[in-house]
Amino acid sequence: MLLLKIGGGEKINFEYIARDVKNIIEREQVIIVQGANHDTDKISRQLDYAPKTITSPSGYTSRYTDQRTMEILTMVYSGLVNKKIVASLQQAGVNALGLSGVDGGLLKGERKQKILSVEDGKTKVITDDYTGKVTSVNHRLLSLLLSNGYTPVICLPALSENNEMINFDNDRVCAKIAEAMNIKTIVSLFEAPGFLKDASDQNSLLKTLSLSELLANEDSALGRMKKKILGAKEAFAGGVEKIYWADGRQEYPVSRALNGEGTIICADS
Amino acid sequence: MLLLKIGGGEKINFEYIARDVKNIIEREQVIIVQGANHDTDKISRQLDYAPKTITSPSGYTSRYTDQRTMEILTMVYSGLVNKKIVASLQQAGVNALGLSGVDGGLLKGERKQKILSVEDGKTKVITDDYTGKVTSVNHRLLSLLLSNGYTPVICLPALSENNEMINFDNDRVCAKIAEAMNIKTIVSLFEAPGFLKDASDQNSLLKTLSLSELLANEDSALGRMKKKILGAKEAFAGGVEKIYWADGRQEYPVSRALNGEGTIICADS
Repeated sequence: MLLLKIGGGEKINFEYIARDVKNIIEREQVIIVQGANHDTDKISRQLDYAPKTITSPSGYTSRYTDQRTMEILTMVYSGLVNKKIVASLQQAGVNALGLSGVDGGLLKGERKQKILSVEDGKTKVITDDYTGKVTSVNHRLLSLLLSNGYTPVICLPALSENNEMINFDNDRVCAKIAEAMNIKTIVSLFEAPGFLKDASDQNSLLKTLSLSELLANEDSALGRMKKKILGAKEAFAGGVEKIYWADGRQEYPVSRALNGEGTIICADS
Repeated sequence: MLLLKIGGGEKINFEYIARDVKNIIEREQVIIVQGANHDTDKISRQLDYAPKTITSPSGYTSRYTDQRTMEILTMVYSGLVNKKIVASLQQAGVNALGLSGVDGGLLKGERKQKILSVEDGKTKVITDDYTGKVTSVNHRLLSLLLSNGYTPVICLPALSENNEMINFDNDRVCAKIAEAMNIKTIVSLFEAPGFLKDASDQNSLLKTLSLSELLANEDSALGRMKKKILGAKEAFAGGVEKIYWADGRQEYPVSRALNGEGTIICADS
């Protein structure tokens, strides 16, 4: 079984991915986790509600998710983008089925009651943020769908212990789902050829890395990459053996990733 | 098995409905079909893309669904509103699971290539409308979910023969789903006490009607009511025996409907 994470960048090509997934599912089952960052930012601006970012004291950035933002996220992730991906997969002959974390209690978590945000050197406490950590995965629902020929396409929101809809980090949720489903391989597609030694240089691709080599970059990593490294660390801790980071803008992106055209990250031996 | 249609009006109370559904599912399975008209109009205006209505030569009104409108519908129906209803049901202890028609190929249909629209007495041909007629229901998916304890909450879009996302009429889709699942009872909740003899008089409720008595109102019915009557006609043709129209703004709305507090429409004997 393969866990495929589709990033939320503007140029990620759903048709290329869907046609490749059609080939993959002939030999193994696939669970998809999908982002929608670019479209969320775009729709937020169209709604005159520009996105805001929080930086934690330890340097992680995340989307400031007040109630209005949570509604926009729900519209764009589980509505617009989830259904576009499902329709692309259906067109390619994959019987995809979209699920947010609230559906069938798929992803449950704990809402963070307080978030610390560093702004202009000062630390503020934010209490109206709907972000949380996913703590349980309804693996029976995923197994039921997979064993009946459906390919799940998963996205936010999750459901908090108080049944609030909450935002979560996709890379960290991939780790939770992989652990719950005993998945050994994650392919993560985004808008770069793989892990770049220098983020501004597309030619600085690192082809193979051990987890500890990846973690050596944790402190210097910027923005989303810092969370991706954290997600990878958690995935290996949960039993994943290989993570492939590769380019979601090209044809056959999953097959190419598995053939080593991006970055392969391996557990430490 | 009961088919529950939740209308898309502003004052429909999801918490009241969810708590009532919790009682109902202890004795029979429920499939939910959900609208989102009010929220769609609101978000459309916020996006500076005001909703437009088409009136057919035979007097039926429908939403003009160009590509941008189809995207907004997908966001609001299968994102915002579907997940709100699912979360309300989860909170009430119902293991709900949201599905659009594209998920698992649940609802497939034919896109109308041309739509006639009457404007200022002139008939125009519209070719960029993404509306269609649902022709097949994946009843095996619904049975799989129901038999495993999940309550499906269904909404647009459906998938056309060319894998386009298409809009459809909810009352007519209820008829298709009822036929596919051999459902004999439909409860339809909206923002009125039931079928009103005079739409402007909340005290003109008709308590019981035969289908032919309902159809006698078809020509004089306005707006949405005309489509509701058409949907009822199709539901009875597909084997439904009783349709309850009732108020979705009050507590225990489904139980009250079944107890005869709204309008009961019966097949002709």
